[in-house]
Amino acid sequence: MSIETEIRRMAEAARIASRAIAVASTDRKNVLLKRMAEGIVSRSAELAAANEQDIAYAREKGLSAAMIDRLTIKDATIQSMVKGLKEVAALPDPVGETVKSWTRPNGLEVSRIRIPLGVIAIIYESRPNVTIDAAALCLKSGNAVLLRGGSEALHSNTVLADIISQSLAETGFPKEAAQVVPVRDRAAVTELLKLEEHIDVVIPRGGESLIRFVVENSRIPVLKHYKGVCHIFVDRDVDFEMAISVCLNAKVQRPGVCNAMETLLIHEDAAPVFLPIVARALREANVELRGCERCLAIVPDMHPATENDWYTEYNDLILSIRIVPDLDAAIDHIGRYGSRHTEAILTKNEANAKRFLKEVDSSVVLVNASTRFNDGGELGLGAEIGISTTKLHAFGPMGLEELTATKFIVEGKGQIRV
Amino acid sequence: MSIETEIRRMAEAARIASRAIAVASTDRKNVLLKRMAEGIVSRSAELAAANEQDIAYAREKGLSAAMIDRLTIKDATIQSMVKGLKEVAALPDPVGETVKSWTRPNGLEVSRIRIPLGVIAIIYESRPNVTIDAAALCLKSGNAVLLRGGSEALHSNTVLADIISQSLAETGFPKEAAQVVPVRDRAAVTELLKLEEHIDVVIPRGGESLIRFVVENSRIPVLKHYKGVCHIFVDRDVDFEMAISVCLNAKVQRPGVCNAMETLLIHEDAAPVFLPIVARALREANVELRGCERCLAIVPDMHPATENDWYTEYNDLILSIRIVPDLDAAIDHIGRYGSRHTEAILTKNEANAKRFLKEVDSSVVLVNASTRFNDGGELGLGAEIGISTTKLHAFGPMGLEELTATKFIVEGKGQIRV
Repeated sequence: MSIETEIRRMAEAARIASRAIAVASTDRKNVLLKRMAEGIVSRSAELAAANEQDIAYAREKGLSAAMIDRLTIKDATIQSMVKGLKEVAALPDPVGETVKSWTRPNGLEVSRIRIPLGVIAIIYESRPNVTIDAAALCLKSGNAVLLRGGSEALHSNTVLADIISQSLAETGFPKEAAQVVPVRDRAAVTELLKLEEHIDVVIPRGGESLIRFVVENSRIPVLKHYKGVCHIFVDRDVDFEMAISVCLNAKVQRPGVCNAMETLLIHEDAAPVFLPIVARALREANVELRGCERCLAIVPDMHPATENDWYTEYNDLILSIRIVPDLDAAIDHIGRYGSRHTEAILTKNEANAKRFLKEVDSSVVLVNASTRFNDGGELGLGAEIGISTTKLHAFGPMGLEELTATKFIVEGKGQIRV
Repeated sequence: MSIETEIRRMAEAARIASRAIAVASTDRKNVLLKRMAEGIVSRSAELAAANEQDIAYAREKGLSAAMIDRLTIKDATIQSMVKGLKEVAALPDPVGETVKSWTRPNGLEVSRIRIPLGVIAIIYESRPNVTIDAAALCLKSGNAVLLRGGSEALHSNTVLADIISQSLAETGFPKEAAQVVPVRDRAAVTELLKLEEHIDVVIPRGGESLIRFVVENSRIPVLKHYKGVCHIFVDRDVDFEMAISVCLNAKVQRPGVCNAMETLLIHEDAAPVFLPIVARALREANVELRGCERCLAIVPDMHPATENDWYTEYNDLILSIRIVPDLDAAIDHIGRYGSRHTEAILTKNEANAKRFLKEVDSSVVLVNASTRFNDGGELGLGAEIGISTTKLHAFGPMGLEELTATKFIVEGKGQIRV
């Protein structure tokens, strides 16, 4: 059987299996998630052995230490998968919720009811725990899921897939409700991305090149963000102590993630005092600073920032800094170089805060708080399957609700259209 | 300047103009819509002359009478555009609405606020009135719009575009907030569909081949429906008189539209009595009937239905009819052959009604009412820009609210992530 035929059959089977999970009760879905958690614990030795094989292969291929670290299933990884499954089981089930209902003048009773999306494909790289986390969110929201992980995690993902299949079978669900797509070449992904009649949405998680590949080749709607070039604007009237604490947190607490600050914009009236203090604090935390010409005039021993820096998501302990004349210039800079991900203003000026919140076109906009709060858990959505920076369907962190749609149901007494 | 460069510049200008319309007050947007209505009336002679040119060209090209009819701007068309503009002005503005707000344990105040999508591209065929109707909905919901009509409506659309531009300029908006894309060849559309950094969503309106072309070539998210193969299932326990009235309405009242019934499913216990009556009523309304083998055994002088009939949207006075053993078989038939558009059950049995509403995976599911009610106006959304049969972002009729997204705004007092 060719890989194309195999993928097509898997997707068809997922579509059929999706009907069973779509109408399942919350209790039955929670029992499934708990069974998955038990399976991970009881088969952890087998999982560790499979993970060893992946790591050996990764070393052979000369993957970086960071890549190998992400690939490694430690005791903490297992505990975190188990904890994640229990947390998702505890979240409220969005399926079946009546979002709104009303009666028309002709007596028709109309409601909008939350339903699962159907079949979700997740395409991701390295981390094998995504297999469990993503499957849990998709299944809890009543969706079937096709998981396509990276080739480097093949053995680990195969065991995790088997744990999921077995859990589905043991709790009375068709095992095709969650399937791991075999990894061979990109032809398999290209084929999968054509199957719009069987797959409702694709969520790619990984580097920008993976995501661009998916968008360029998909006929299926894609939920994604390319990158997070997140900004903080420090306004003229600001509590300097608070501003330094927030800037440090946004840059340093976890520099490798998409909601870390990449560019700091400073009001020109605040810069002479604020820039030297914040620069010192950031350097003490080992951050490399790249400043505009006006920054260099105040703190001369920075690297000069190039045009390209303003577009860059460093994902590292590097920060670009620019002095801007006013709020408008800050908003313009963000509109031009930003990625619509997360931006914050630090200010005492309420009018400026209000304008920033209204005019900045990003998925999460904050006043006097760290960009690191753009996260489903931190904002109160429960777990998240990712962050979207396109506005269709979801904009910002995506929780269980974002894995559903609404349909209209209409109840009548024989009404006809006139 | 190449067509590619021209399209790219238009899209860039639309992105910039979108900021002005996004933050405009409801009043200012309504003044704009009223100015457009005045422009259409005051320039109706010019519009009629341009439309004459299009019609002459269409005759030359040998377009069908139906196509020419859709192209023609009659007095009624002008009145309908003016009425549409006034109705859209009267609709509530979704932009700025706080959909939900809550406070986190750390004191962060989180809200989800409705915002415009940004820049919307509409790609459509023949009817020039879509230029006005679509522009009105996009502008009212705070979006900039790129309109790409059919080549056969070029002259009419050019005048309409000029009316919109002039209205924008006269009411203090950038005229690039609504632009008609020049019609030359499909290369222009292909180019437009690549501009994901400037365009947020594409809505194609027209035949299935146009829509498939857009989906296959777009990197931008697409809101669409391919076709409406709508079903009615007549259950065993049913009020025959009501069922005949609803079936006739669904098939005959306007057979050329996407929410007309295309396939009638009848419970085998109802068929011996119901089929002959409904067949006679439908034939009196000039409907051609194509039945399954079991139908032919009851009403022998029908055309036999082929497998292909079950997939077909006739858009005409033709109906396929199938006798099914029970509700499950009806739901299976719809799942297999349907288009997720609109399905109705006619029944006195509440348990069956409930199951049908829950298990049928279509954008609008009705009990004891005509499929023709799948329409934004009829369901109470105000005007509609189209109907979506994919679940991402919108499923079913799309009104103003479906032309918006939500962003998160977060207000803090210096909170950092720990």
